[in-house]
Amino acid sequence: MRLAIEAAEGVRGTTSPNPPVGAVILDAAGELAGIGATQPAGGPHAEVVALRLAGELARGGTAVVTLEPCNHHGRTPPCTDALLAAGIETVYFAVSDPNPVAAGGTAMLETAGVSVHAGLLADDVAAGPLRAWLHWQRTGRSHVTWKFAASLDGRSAASDGTSQWITGPQARARVHAGRAKLDAIVIGTGTVIQDDPWLTARTPDGNLAPHQPLRVVVGTRDIPKTARVLDDAAPTLVLKTRDVAEVIDAMADYPDVLLEGGPTLAGAFLAVQRIDRILAYIAPVLLGTGAAAVENAGVGNIAQALRFRREYVETIGPDVLLSLVPAMEE
Amino acid sequence: MRLAIEAAEGVRGTTSPNPPVGAVILDAAGELAGIGATQPAGGPHAEVVALRLAGELARGGTAVVTLEPCNHHGRTPPCTDALLAAGIETVYFAVSDPNPVAAGGTAMLETAGVSVHAGLLADDVAAGPLRAWLHWQRTGRSHVTWKFAASLDGRSAASDGTSQWITGPQARARVHAGRAKLDAIVIGTGTVIQDDPWLTARTPDGNLAPHQPLRVVVGTRDIPKTARVLDDAAPTLVLKTRDVAEVIDAMADYPDVLLEGGPTLAGAFLAVQRIDRILAYIAPVLLGTGAAAVENAGVGNIAQALRFRREYVETIGPDVLLSLVPAMEE
Ligand SMILES: NC(=O)c1ccc[n+]([C@@H]2O[C@H](COP(=O)([O-])OP(=O)(O)OC[C@H]3O[C@@H](n4cnc5c(N)ncnc54)[C@H](OP(=O)(O)O)[C@@H]3O)[C@@H](O)[C@H]2O)c1
Ligand SMILES: NC(=O)c1ccc[n+]([C@@H]2O[C@H](COP(=O)([O-])OP(=O)(O)OC[C@H]3O[C@@H](n4cnc5c(N)ncnc54)[C@H](OP(=O)(O)O)[C@@H]3O)[C@@H](O)[C@H]2O)c1
Repeated sequence: MRLAIEAAEGVRGTTSPNPPVGAVILDAAGELAGIGATQPAGGPHAEVVALRLAGELARGGTAVVTLEPCNHHGRTPPCTDALLAAGIETVYFAVSDPNPVAAGGTAMLETAGVSVHAGLLADDVAAGPLRAWLHWQRTGRSHVTWKFAASLDGRSAASDGTSQWITGPQARARVHAGRAKLDAIVIGTGTVIQDDPWLTARTPDGNLAPHQPLRVVVGTRDIPKTARVLDDAAPTLVLKTRDVAEVIDAMADYPDVLLEGGPTLAGAFLAVQRIDRILAYIAPVLLGTGAAAVENAGVGNIAQALRFRREYVETIGPDVLLSLVPAMEE
Repeated sequence: MRLAIEAAEGVRGTTSPNPPVGAVILDAAGELAGIGATQPAGGPHAEVVALRLAGELARGGTAVVTLEPCNHHGRTPPCTDALLAAGIETVYFAVSDPNPVAAGGTAMLETAGVSVHAGLLADDVAAGPLRAWLHWQRTGRSHVTWKFAASLDGRSAASDGTSQWITGPQARARVHAGRAKLDAIVIGTGTVIQDDPWLTARTPDGNLAPHQPLRVVVGTRDIPKTARVLDDAAPTLVLKTRDVAEVIDAMADYPDVLLEGGPTLAGAFLAVQRIDRILAYIAPVLLGTGAAAVENAGVGNIAQALRFRREYVETIGPDVLLSLVPAMEE
């Protein structure tokens, strides 16, 4: 299952509206026979890719999949059929399919005599590669991660507006590498006007990554025609609004969304409880004055504080990364 | 040595101007024969306490001490004499004595035929129980730790001034327990006027701890005669100044000092580089507006940012504790 999770992570961002799934096929003796991951929409699902690689070795073997095999005719035939045709006798999967249209795979396989085991590393998959997709299935809304970098005293820029760089190169490399796995990146006009970022996903050698998330700019002001987010490197959506609900609606087809600031837009999302995860990169730096990491989140006193639950804390070079989720789940 | 470090931690705060030292005596067979720690000034040193407990078992045995045994006649006779008189044949110690008056213990013991080993867990001791005392010996100034509690966005209070509580009970208990080990606690008139804290060290059952650090209030304003810091529970020094150097001078006899805020006084200490360690308790909370954890630390742009090096990061209940030291050592 660890291998299947890795395979799923590898295609995250490229499979929407399908979930990024990973599959591993073991032969009858338990040896690795094939690995696969979901191909872009219209392409084969993970199980089919892995089965093709395994070929005849799959007969009498085991399939290990991050999501319950689908049981419906969509753009591709059901994976359950493919597993049966290949002669798979045992299936382990992590997470049950919450989509009523595709579900029913377990029952179908068991009826056909396959031994099916659900729940293997289910938490890892649900918090990992399938996180955004499961949220999107459950709520009908994108999963919004707010990422910010701040000093220890919560400033995202010094008093003269300079902010490059607060965090170290390791944290910045991590942010860049993560972009290729997203469906969309959202920023406000303020950040476009002030920083003029590209918001493109790049490989470590500086080239454009094969998959680029949609760039979304939110705000009523016109942004310069020469703004870098308007270049040809990736698609861009300009939303002339200050209504968070409208932004969320416009992104309904994008399961995994990253909000990259700045403080005003983040505050607006927070005030209406539309942040599903916070990735806070905290640098061991003090600024003492300067723009705050978040503005106007609708908190007047300590009782109204927006409280989160720590998922994990990690050190990245000199910085600390905190992953947080809302303390009260909806 | 772990036991000796624990013994030293146990007396931290009660031994000034002497260092908090721990000692363990093993008999000739290597069995534990005695443990001791420095008694309040004028009382016996750690080695002597441990030797008394060991009695005749010390003969032919080993002494394990966090600091090089002293070799001078101060208010008590040299520990080297006590070790020789007890028949100790082997000595392990962590940190060499930086005090030229007391040093020379190793040479004296070796001349007398004792086998002496320096440096055992020296880093743990130097960053642990002897940290403040070593700094004080080296620089002639108190070791100043700035402790603050803030939200993820670096606020130390909500916009209406409420700040109780940002951090969880575990972090607050830790702060309270730590007070009894300090020589002095410093705050500004702003915090006295706004929060009216007691700043006393209390045991878990709520009683006053036997050792109370000196309370120091800094600022030109008069504080109310009824302020809690002026009660009889502990001594209090009121410094009617805004000059950080004057504050540092006034605390020259207090090796281990904690600055408990608020943001203005912390900024003033930071601006003149008089913070030797930061203990930042970061709560998984967002406030979006409200007072910042630090004000006016003298930083105008990102190049002037005050940079620190992470010593460790730890989770305490829902909160994260970061220990930081200045990135460039003097
Ligand atoms: N440290 C970090 O992680 C980080 C990340 C990003 C940006 N930044 C910094 O943030 C600064 C820019 O700050 P910013 O706050 O201006 O950027 P921003 O939040 O990206 O943009 C603010 C703009 O968003 C628009 N907006 C959309 N919905 C809104 C709503 N519901 N309420 C209010 N405004 C809404 C408004 O545009 P209109 O006025 O056009 O309507 C507003 O002016 C830059 O200095 C940048 O470096 C830091
Ligand atoms: N979250 C935390 O960890 C934490 C800790 C402590 C306090 N707080 C909060 O901080 C708030 C109080 O803030 P504050 O900034 O007023 O408190 P403060 O820093 O304790 O006191 C400020 C006062 O310090 C004096 N001062 C001494 N040296 C100074 C210098 N070099 N420059 C400027 N002033 C100097 C000034 O007093 P004069 O004007 O009398 O000269 C100044 O008004 C309260 O709401 C409290 O809850 C939070």
